[in-house]
Amino acid sequence: MRKYRLLTPGPVPVPERIRRAMAGTLLHHRAPDFLPVFHEVRVGLQRVFGTERQVLLLASSGTGAMEAAVTNLTRPGDTAVVVRAGKFGDRWFELCRAYGVEALSVDVEWGRAVDPDELAAVLRAKRGVRAVFAQASETSTGVLHPMEPVARAVADNSEALLVVDGISAVGVHPLPMDAWGIDALLSGSQKSWQLPPGLAMIALSERAEAALERGGHARYYFDLRKELRGQPTGATAYSPALALIVGLAESLRMLFEDGLERSYARHAELAEMTRDGVRALGMALLAASAPSNACTAVRVPRQLDAGKLLSQLRDHHGVTLAGGQGQLSGKILRIGHMGDLDTYDMLAGLAALELTLLDFGVPIELGAGVHSALNRMRVGVSASAPQETEGRNPWRAS
Amino acid sequence: MRKYRLLTPGPVPVPERIRRAMAGTLLHHRAPDFLPVFHEVRVGLQRVFGTERQVLLLASSGTGAMEAAVTNLTRPGDTAVVVRAGKFGDRWFELCRAYGVEALSVDVEWGRAVDPDELAAVLRAKRGVRAVFAQASETSTGVLHPMEPVARAVADNSEALLVVDGISAVGVHPLPMDAWGIDALLSGSQKSWQLPPGLAMIALSERAEAALERGGHARYYFDLRKELRGQPTGATAYSPALALIVGLAESLRMLFEDGLERSYARHAELAEMTRDGVRALGMALLAASAPSNACTAVRVPRQLDAGKLLSQLRDHHGVTLAGGQGQLSGKILRIGHMGDLDTYDMLAGLAALELTLLDFGVPIELGAGVHSALNRMRVGVSASAPQETEGRNPWRAS
Repeated sequence: MRKYRLLTPGPVPVPERIRRAMAGTLLHHRAPDFLPVFHEVRVGLQRVFGTERQVLLLASSGTGAMEAAVTNLTRPGDTAVVVRAGKFGDRWFELCRAYGVEALSVDVEWGRAVDPDELAAVLRAKRGVRAVFAQASETSTGVLHPMEPVARAVADNSEALLVVDGISAVGVHPLPMDAWGIDALLSGSQKSWQLPPGLAMIALSERAEAALERGGHARYYFDLRKELRGQPTGATAYSPALALIVGLAESLRMLFEDGLERSYARHAELAEMTRDGVRALGMALLAASAPSNACTAVRVPRQLDAGKLLSQLRDHHGVTLAGGQGQLSGKILRIGHMGDLDTYDMLAGLAALELTLLDFGVPIELGAGVHSALNRMRVGVSASAPQETEGRNPWRAS
Repeated sequence: MRKYRLLTPGPVPVPERIRRAMAGTLLHHRAPDFLPVFHEVRVGLQRVFGTERQVLLLASSGTGAMEAAVTNLTRPGDTAVVVRAGKFGDRWFELCRAYGVEALSVDVEWGRAVDPDELAAVLRAKRGVRAVFAQASETSTGVLHPMEPVARAVADNSEALLVVDGISAVGVHPLPMDAWGIDALLSGSQKSWQLPPGLAMIALSERAEAALERGGHARYYFDLRKELRGQPTGATAYSPALALIVGLAESLRMLFEDGLERSYARHAELAEMTRDGVRALGMALLAASAPSNACTAVRVPRQLDAGKLLSQLRDHHGVTLAGGQGQLSGKILRIGHMGDLDTYDMLAGLAALELTLLDFGVPIELGAGVHSALNRMRVGVSASAPQETEGRNPWRAS
């Protein structure tokens, strides 16, 4: 049996500590002893979301929370603007279309970030836009959109609600909802939260909450009015994804033990060393101009078969990466930086990539990627905590 | 710390074997090594559902599958008939109303089963009914509706699709979907499957599948057309509830090791001994005429405060039972028979109930309930497997 290394941008490897927590005896979700767990999760989520608003929990994948945003914040016939810069931008567009919302799209080349000025121009040209739907981190391309200027562009040029899919951004990059004026922010368990899929989160600004009362779409399972009434007292409208909530409590404990800043720094370190390593191999980054630290998308040279590359990595090296989706299918591979992964896992991924590229006849210099990544590890460590490193130096101990 | 005994009809205690399976390393759901697991689950579910049709998996609680049934099988303006005999019957009614489906209700006193003849009369009186929505086991009252005659009544008197919420029935009572002509059968993980909540299942007959193409309601996350296209090859439309699917595979293995018949027999044994015990205490069963083996609903004597009774059981005896819902709130308590529970757990529940009733001044004969339940255990065992008992008798071994 080959050791299994899951380096995809969701699902992600779940730390043993979280798996143990989820494997413990589960209390009934209405039990008094469960209330503190629910409360801890609520408060912890508020801290990570950067909000004083409720963060609601839904038993669904992230797409369920996206649907909830569309059906709770718009009405059929409303006009929305969608930032379409990848597969998940397309998902916003499809959701709007499915629910009879007119969606104007700001089309962005896959691999590039949206230009807030362009978005502003679209909003100025079309009055009465009800909502702007965007990704913070577009998981299909590894792009980080500039959410702070996007939020300013929306606020300065429209009355629209800004709805941000933070599924692969929250916990990876700072995304302070209240400070930046995001009206709805959502996430999903199988990303920076280090959990299996099946739990989604969504928070609404005061303005967004007021919009719930406009009614419009038929809704039931994802009716956020019901969740807002119950969840302050720990009562989800329907059976909650109990094991994942228990896991989330443990995940938040781990997060706050190290600190939120450390989580951002860790994702940055893994992403930067991967980008350095890939570049040193002469491969091109898809999102070079605006990379997300959630995952790194690497262009596969045209003469290579991406599917075969991924199979070889998986079957001969035990390293699972993700391929491209939609129009990028067969053209990229994606390396995830979320979940129970550290710098040495990234090194393993790069090393396996190097060996595989050589197998496929690509003339790389063996070790160049690993060396460049190692260098980033060294520079990163010495730059961020020199005192501590010095104090622990065994050669100076006596 | 008091030992925790969860005797509610969902969530249910999860066996350690399943918790261990879920706590193992989770493979990516598109990994080739995961396909056999998905296949095993599909085939196992077909066996339990009694169908040759696909059983689709949804990342949601059972209510999500109920919503999927309504939005995929009806159109706004359609007429449906709803069997309303408890809180979950009400849920069908609310779902129809939320989605603009005219719902005629067959109102049944809570605690009684629907009369198939009454349903037939309603269907004869109203032409063009699109669907009949019912529960097999109504978890809020502990009633088992007679699904085979219900299915005949629907088929003989209408063209309507029969949609059955089998959330607390599948795996507890035989409910062979194909043989009985059920058009949609759904279930949820936190019942007889012995899993935490967050995974729902739904299967559609050929006729129901054809109805998907009629269109009608806006739908996206719960669009079963997409699931039917993907799931035969293991691909759910969105991130699947991966840990629960792995747990379900283990749950099905445990089920088939003992046999499906044994599962029905076990639930029957736990339910029967509980009913005997409760009756011996002079308490009345809510669903005496048509009891489900998923849970037993017991009327709380009018002079007692049901909430205080439940708190006392929980806080002083570690036994968690469920109270009543909706119009039965404060009037009943419910004892679950699903999940990792055996006859001795039922004895513990009854013993705690006896002690608590005495605390509240109810003049019961201490031990009467336990004695009656024990007697059922003895009669049950000696009737079902006398040979085996004899063979294992240590006094005869030498």
